[in-house]
Amino acid sequence: MSKSIFYHAGCPVCVSAEQDIVNLIGVDNVEVVHIGEDRSRISEAENAGVKSVPALVTPKGNALHINFGASMADVKA
Amino acid sequence: MSKSIFYHAGCPVCVSAEQDIVNLIGVDNVEVVHIGEDRSRISEAENAGVKSVPALVTPKGNALHINFGASMADVKA
Repeated sequence: MSKSIFYHAGCPVCVSAEQDIVNLIGVDNVEVVHIGEDRSRISEAENAGVKSVPALVTPKGNALHINFGASMADVKA
Repeated sequence: MSKSIFYHAGCPVCVSAEQDIVNLIGVDNVEVVHIGEDRSRISEAENAGVKSVPALVTPKGNALHINFGASMADVKA
């Protein structure tokens, strides 16, 4: 894959981080996924190593947790 | 300021995140500061809202804590 994926759950911390990440790496270089709404992608995020949101998974597959909005347990609750 | 600033302290988590961030936003768009070595910039990082390293301060001045390597208290110890 060549795009990064930004996983979030709509929390204020998530929205703020999303704006920063889009500004930094460019809207064309990141797919934004709301795993609170698109719950079918929660397992994909977990498999990528995402422990909390917001998080960015790089094209190399590294999970970067950015600040802290909510744990995956919170997202799944 | 137009560059982001990446603050780190040489920890493994920091080094890994630095490589990811440089790959994502480009080496020309980020200044890398090792506050374990350049201790004169610790207060600058704290003033920008950095609570732990590694952290990226965006051109807009937002502090993005990326994963967790060490707290600022650890860095100052």
